[in-house]
Amino acid sequence: MLPDLTDLTDLTDFRTALSQAPGPDGDALSAAQDRNGQLTKPPGALGRLEDLAIWYAGWRGDARPQVKAPQVVVFAGNHGVTAQGVSAFPAEVTAQMVLNFQHGGAAINQLAGAAGARLDVHALDLDRPTDDFTKGPAMSEADLLDALRTGWAAVDPSADLLVVGEMGIGNTTPAAALACALYGGDAGDWTGRGTGVDAAGLANKTRVVAEGVALHGGSDDGLEILRCLGGREIAAMAGAIAAARVLRIPVILDGFICTAAAACLARVSGAALDHAVAGHQSAESAHASLLQKLGKQPLLSLGLRLGEGSGGALAINILKSAVACHSGMATFAEAGVTDG
Amino acid sequence: MLPDLTDLTDLTDFRTALSQAPGPDGDALSAAQDRNGQLTKPPGALGRLEDLAIWYAGWRGDARPQVKAPQVVVFAGNHGVTAQGVSAFPAEVTAQMVLNFQHGGAAINQLAGAAGARLDVHALDLDRPTDDFTKGPAMSEADLLDALRTGWAAVDPSADLLVVGEMGIGNTTPAAALACALYGGDAGDWTGRGTGVDAAGLANKTRVVAEGVALHGGSDDGLEILRCLGGREIAAMAGAIAAARVLRIPVILDGFICTAAAACLARVSGAALDHAVAGHQSAESAHASLLQKLGKQPLLSLGLRLGEGSGGALAINILKSAVACHSGMATFAEAGVTDG
Repeated sequence: MLPDLTDLTDLTDFRTALSQAPGPDGDALSAAQDRNGQLTKPPGALGRLEDLAIWYAGWRGDARPQVKAPQVVVFAGNHGVTAQGVSAFPAEVTAQMVLNFQHGGAAINQLAGAAGARLDVHALDLDRPTDDFTKGPAMSEADLLDALRTGWAAVDPSADLLVVGEMGIGNTTPAAALACALYGGDAGDWTGRGTGVDAAGLANKTRVVAEGVALHGGSDDGLEILRCLGGREIAAMAGAIAAARVLRIPVILDGFICTAAAACLARVSGAALDHAVAGHQSAESAHASLLQKLGKQPLLSLGLRLGEGSGGALAINILKSAVACHSGMATFAEAGVTDG
Repeated sequence: MLPDLTDLTDLTDFRTALSQAPGPDGDALSAAQDRNGQLTKPPGALGRLEDLAIWYAGWRGDARPQVKAPQVVVFAGNHGVTAQGVSAFPAEVTAQMVLNFQHGGAAINQLAGAAGARLDVHALDLDRPTDDFTKGPAMSEADLLDALRTGWAAVDPSADLLVVGEMGIGNTTPAAALACALYGGDAGDWTGRGTGVDAAGLANKTRVVAEGVALHGGSDDGLEILRCLGGREIAAMAGAIAAARVLRIPVILDGFICTAAAACLARVSGAALDHAVAGHQSAESAHASLLQKLGKQPLLSLGLRLGEGSGGALAINILKSAVACHSGMATFAEAGVTDG
């Protein structure tokens, strides 16, 4: 039995579910590798598309899979740390953008549409921002568990691919703090311009990240770091990625904030992100370093820095194309082509 | 009146049509730039997707365009230079793969399908390979004109996006020779392993390229270089790209061989490729240098080295997504979102 939401009564259950989640199907994986070697193309000529399709086949337990039901979920949250002046936009924009998502006017609506993906939006207590992490923990344990549960429950068990995205004014600041607490280094190494702060803004943001990490950085526990320095939408993303891991639904990671959420899970269990690929490398400066820490090579690098799941959704079509080649191509024998 | 195929009675007509082809629509271009600045995202947050959509709007003469009718055309040809042992596969594979395209079993069939694109296949005199360019010109002027015309006529004037691809055993060798004749340098700088030749094969291939360029490299005329060192499918690609330029149909370039064909046009007219973007950077070693010479930054870099138009077709969805964002998103005013 897969653990469902109601089993998650505390963080220990969450850790256990994540750590005991099943890996890919070894038979499907090797059958897919086998099939890949017989398709009408020179060995390796489809590059990363071949690796993607085989990886997907393993996680879906089907040597000749299809991508039929991709799901994009966007979580929104507000952050007490915006009181420190870390964003160029006012916090009210978070709720305005949630309406925009619901009315179909945002980038992610168009990108999910172009990828043939279902889009769900979950706003998490927008009128109740997390606490300012320079003063104390961003969330209580109950708050964290609530957000993880929201993310967990947001995943459609019948989805065959998941992208999670976020909206939250100020949330590159907690993401930078999470990365710094998880991997060390200077706050400046992990802090970027986010949505357009200037040089003075960047210096202030770096100070805020440094203060937060100094206050809470003692822990080596991914969930405790997430509680102290994260945010509700970040925790919900982590919950959704964890649920997908348990359900063997492959995940395409989005940008810096999504990757920071995922990194908290990787600290809980070394295999927590084996079902995830990096959709893109964003223009947010520290995203490349964060992906490197996780050993994930991005599929795309097109200078996006929007969030919302935009880069992950854009990469859905790459994965779909990879799987279409793998499952739709003829073998040398079927096509009567001489295998050099 | 746009020149049609029947107007192309000789190479001078081709040159004239290419050189006099209209540029993008300035009004649509500036209206699209304007619209881009009003969409509900921070300025520049969609990175290269924004540039792509604006570029596409200009060429289509529509500030809020859609991509509805992409066309992929694959041209096939055989090469006399295979007598020099430049390929690991026998020449019969070209015709076998054409059948595979026609039966829907190749990678390009799946990729065109995943991109919602029409796919056409043109085999050019497969039983009449070009001449071995180490002995004399690959084609007569009549042969070249025939191949250019085939490519020109293959473009559907109602298409709104074009990808051209190729199949031709041995054709990385003429592509390397074209690049070397156009841009200079050593044959070794432009010669790669193609579809799996070993180190000895690479040395032999480099010698063949050097011999061809030594014999024919005196010309600075893109079409004469194409005639002496190219191939029918390469010339057909050039013809199709030129027709698209005249018809203002945007083009996504594929890999090394497609880019070599395009480079011949760029030598005829400096603006010949303004309607073209680079779909991807292939794993064929000299493709990156060739794109750099043309000032084209690839959209994707996923290690593909298949040809067939595969990388170009894969990038169709990127362009479609870019245009979907541009034309489908709400403005700040429409959505009631505060513009920071």
